[in-house]
Amino acid sequence: MRDYLDGPHKAARDVVRAELAAHADLAVRLPHDEYRDRVLELLQRSAASGLPARGFPKEYGGAADLGGFIAGFETLAFGDLSLMVKAGVQFGLFAGAILHLGTERHHKQYLADAISGRLLGCFAMTETGHGSNVQALGTTATYDEATDEFVVHTPTPAARKDYIGNAARHGRMAAVFAQLVVGGENHGVHCLLVPIRGEDGSALPGVTLSDCGPKLGLNGVDNGRIVFDQVRVPRAALLDRYAQVDANGNYTSAIENPDRRFFTMLGTLVQGRVSVGGAAINASKVALTIAIRYAAQRRQFGAPGSSEEAILLDYRMHQRRLLPLLARTYALHFAQAELVAEFARVFDSERDGERDEHDRRALEAQAAGTKALGTWHATETIQQCREACGGAGYLAENRLATLKADTDVFTTFEGDNTVLLQLVAKGLLTDYRRSFGELDPLGTARFVAAQAVEFAVEKAALRPLIERLRDAVPNRSDASDPDAGLRDGAYHSGLLRYREEHMLSGVARRLKAGIDAGIDAFEVFNRCQDHVIAAGRAHVDRVVLEAFQSAVRDAPEEVQPVLQDVYDLHALSTIEAERAWYLEHGRLSPGRSKAITALVNDLCATVRPAAPDLVDAFGVPASAVEVPMVVPSQA
Amino acid sequence: MRDYLDGPHKAARDVVRAELAAHADLAVRLPHDEYRDRVLELLQRSAASGLPARGFPKEYGGAADLGGFIAGFETLAFGDLSLMVKAGVQFGLFAGAILHLGTERHHKQYLADAISGRLLGCFAMTETGHGSNVQALGTTATYDEATDEFVVHTPTPAARKDYIGNAARHGRMAAVFAQLVVGGENHGVHCLLVPIRGEDGSALPGVTLSDCGPKLGLNGVDNGRIVFDQVRVPRAALLDRYAQVDANGNYTSAIENPDRRFFTMLGTLVQGRVSVGGAAINASKVALTIAIRYAAQRRQFGAPGSSEEAILLDYRMHQRRLLPLLARTYALHFAQAELVAEFARVFDSERDGERDEHDRRALEAQAAGTKALGTWHATETIQQCREACGGAGYLAENRLATLKADTDVFTTFEGDNTVLLQLVAKGLLTDYRRSFGELDPLGTARFVAAQAVEFAVEKAALRPLIERLRDAVPNRSDASDPDAGLRDGAYHSGLLRYREEHMLSGVARRLKAGIDAGIDAFEVFNRCQDHVIAAGRAHVDRVVLEAFQSAVRDAPEEVQPVLQDVYDLHALSTIEAERAWYLEHGRLSPGRSKAITALVNDLCATVRPAAPDLVDAFGVPASAVEVPMVVPSQA
Repeated sequence: MRDYLDGPHKAARDVVRAELAAHADLAVRLPHDEYRDRVLELLQRSAASGLPARGFPKEYGGAADLGGFIAGFETLAFGDLSLMVKAGVQFGLFAGAILHLGTERHHKQYLADAISGRLLGCFAMTETGHGSNVQALGTTATYDEATDEFVVHTPTPAARKDYIGNAARHGRMAAVFAQLVVGGENHGVHCLLVPIRGEDGSALPGVTLSDCGPKLGLNGVDNGRIVFDQVRVPRAALLDRYAQVDANGNYTSAIENPDRRFFTMLGTLVQGRVSVGGAAINASKVALTIAIRYAAQRRQFGAPGSSEEAILLDYRMHQRRLLPLLARTYALHFAQAELVAEFARVFDSERDGERDEHDRRALEAQAAGTKALGTWHATETIQQCREACGGAGYLAENRLATLKADTDVFTTFEGDNTVLLQLVAKGLLTDYRRSFGELDPLGTARFVAAQAVEFAVEKAALRPLIERLRDAVPNRSDASDPDAGLRDGAYHSGLLRYREEHMLSGVARRLKAGIDAGIDAFEVFNRCQDHVIAAGRAHVDRVVLEAFQSAVRDAPEEVQPVLQDVYDLHALSTIEAERAWYLEHGRLSPGRSKAITALVNDLCATVRPAAPDLVDAFGVPASAVEVPMVVPSQA
Repeated sequence: MRDYLDGPHKAARDVVRAELAAHADLAVRLPHDEYRDRVLELLQRSAASGLPARGFPKEYGGAADLGGFIAGFETLAFGDLSLMVKAGVQFGLFAGAILHLGTERHHKQYLADAISGRLLGCFAMTETGHGSNVQALGTTATYDEATDEFVVHTPTPAARKDYIGNAARHGRMAAVFAQLVVGGENHGVHCLLVPIRGEDGSALPGVTLSDCGPKLGLNGVDNGRIVFDQVRVPRAALLDRYAQVDANGNYTSAIENPDRRFFTMLGTLVQGRVSVGGAAINASKVALTIAIRYAAQRRQFGAPGSSEEAILLDYRMHQRRLLPLLARTYALHFAQAELVAEFARVFDSERDGERDEHDRRALEAQAAGTKALGTWHATETIQQCREACGGAGYLAENRLATLKADTDVFTTFEGDNTVLLQLVAKGLLTDYRRSFGELDPLGTARFVAAQAVEFAVEKAALRPLIERLRDAVPNRSDASDPDAGLRDGAYHSGLLRYREEHMLSGVARRLKAGIDAGIDAFEVFNRCQDHVIAAGRAHVDRVVLEAFQSAVRDAPEEVQPVLQDVYDLHALSTIEAERAWYLEHGRLSPGRSKAITALVNDLCATVRPAAPDLVDAFGVPASAVEVPMVVPSQA
């Protein structure tokens, strides 16, 4: 199973596993600055081992193996997460900005040093006043024709760069996102390379650096603030892949529409989102490995009169708390593997000069959705694991506390999850609008009529009747097993697809109706914002489910049966969690809904004996999971 | 509103508020041992201000005002939670054990010093191997007739006392729970006072003390471990209110049944549970005050073309995330106030020599249930608040991170929440069994028949039809308002009561059927453990709802309208969260279920303008909520 989970990038993962085993001591808390410096040391060691180089072109010392790069990076999440995040800032965001937004000149000058960790950098996008709405950043970069320089400036306190990794202590240079003003005209947000610290580590003139101070977690990362007071950089500092300014102060860009240009540049974020989603899923694996091993050996209470207490993992409630989360971790693992493969494919094509806008947008939506679900999943899973281990789970030595604190920010950094799900839904609605747009008037009418009929059917509550008939006569040959239909993959994806499509069309209808009624556009959107976000989530749920289905189909014979059980547990607990919606929309009868809950209970019991093996298959290095509360001999 | 929320113990709350304002600097993290010593200093200052004395009899320097004691203690949760927990260990658990389990001799010798903080103590109950199942503790206290002493001993590594507050650094004495062995016979768990540290702070002979090390939070509390190696204490060390050993080695107890004796002694825990529940609810108030003030001033995105961005709290999704939690915080506040009043009443009666076992059990169940819901609510609320404040919420300076880390253990200490809800359900089932027991055969038959008929009705799905008819013809005179029936308090409590009773009777039926079928008792219980816990929760949900209803009824006229809106939001979002169950059981039609969701959205918008005032009414001291991310002038 472990080989199957590791997939094509096993080698990259194993390199990082070995590395993590070598610095297992990091989970112990060090004093603030010592901890930060130790993480820097590990970052540089990691650079020397060639991990980050995988993600970069061969001409700058790289190996041009994007999939391996991401897989290795994700694997870092088995260890100290400060190292993972600092590596993300340095190699993913800072070096990534140079690679993706810069041109050959920048690549030649900086990439090798950035990849090796000799040039430490920041990704200075977020400001105190603007986190999600990046288009409204306040920092300015104004072209001064007289000196052929850009003047980088923080005009208001809200425009201060904030939460910037590497800024408080180690960063020498920053990729700064600022409103580019040329000849008095604002061309929107662009990125420039701005030196911030001298060789001696002190801030350069005009640059004020400060420390964000202690955080809930990730205290090995030196997050800080940057204020610019009329800092001058040469014109060449502009990362000019998508827009150029010449010596005469002429601004040019191959992308005329400023919005499209902005979102194209923002596309650099996709790699960060892919990585964070993967890291979150891997952090969940660490927590589940610890909590399930603990639950498989810990005894408490038990049958009256029995001399031995019962094992925690044999309690139904304990199974209910941990095993559906284990199943969802498997589901997300396979969805993430699909995403990484697609990421590598799209970026490899682009490197070969073939940029497909539709593929790019689809990739960005898939990355946003997987990041949102993966990081929320990590928060929920680690919380459940902590509670399932009681007081022992609260001690730093048992790692769950540290994992919880370190991963908590994942749900809001690299894009706030609610904003990301909106982005997913908006992408889908755009496709919707396109299908409206491409239809002739008659076609549109038919399209709307089809929706209306569906609606009428629903209102008449015929569907529950149909469902009941189906309950009575299972559409499987094995009529002796009343659950047969419930474990049918086509039934699961049918339900999830129905939900996704119904929600999206519902949102589309509500938006259209609101606009037609002349209501203010913001108000129209806001009234169905919860609906929009739920639709985005329904879409990602379906994508994740189908990724798991493919993985079961493609699995080697020896792991297929157990993987099928885990899949069923995931599918049915996903449907169970949304059963209110299905009941409201006549897609589940009350009886069938209860049968699903009963089957989830049964599947928990079915999966339980395999649970220790299922977490072993994650291949988390022993150094990360052998904690005092889990007695090694029994683990 | 604030006066109404403060209720009868306003004075006690205000004393603590003033105290907290005086040491506002504590939110800043200090190095490990300095932090612990600073918390001790504050604890002693707090003792000097008379807060803990309220909870103790007048003859030992107390004020015999239990309600004021708990209210003041809860209010400590507005400040640094390490102080609150350390105070809980010292005054609630350690001094509480002496008061409730000891006799006059112990009171005279120790109480005044314990209350003043001169004698620092531990409550050494939990062991490495036994947290929830206290009855199975491994530590022994064996009576040695030859020397008239008890020998306290840790026979196995699993019997080590663990997570004990005050053990790592400050405690001089411990209230140790151990199996009491007299004349070779084990009489079950009893409590003894055992000195653990000398005047110079070093461990006494035979006592090994160690540190639990860093924790997710509460690092101002010195949790540690204690191992006893044949430590001898005089016979008088036994806290002998409920059981005595005389100089001839005769064990006597007025409570003959060992189980009943054990649970009577365990009753000392009720005060801790009442306090932790209240502290958790107050910690939620701190988080909501910060997050709602932030959301009421922070702008992000907005209408296309508009020059100003929209305020976060005007977004539906943001309202959805925060306002139902605000409403539930109000609900829990009132439920907690009822609990504290009942706690004071029961304990005052007992002090006057009137112990009512039924009242005591009911109080213990109510405390367990409110503690479980209140602490899970805190975890959920603080998490939502943290996410709703993005990166800023992750910085220690903005307090949400600290709150989250510090409160996290509340769900599993002072009784694991799932175990506590089981306790609630078992209490209710005992009452059930009693009503079976008290009925004659005919009565029992009728009772069962009534259940069966109800079940048949449900199966025939007649109820949804009835519900639909009711939807069509609202049973209110104001037929122009289709939501009229949905805001009817009797309708809400009817639904919650139905759910509670249906679940309990379902559990009873399943248990009975399993036992009748000859299945192993543990297996029978385990198969419906999730059902048992859900029934416990349903009960507490109903109790909380009805407490809020009473509070609205009794509220002064000027706050009643807004309180009514907040109540409706709480009631309907509670029903919404469980709507799958109501749909499955034919108590909501799909249409009505959707109408509830729509009304929750509307109520969020209704409550939103009052939200800043509603958090102001919590009266959290400015020192606890004026954080950098909330601009004071706008707060």
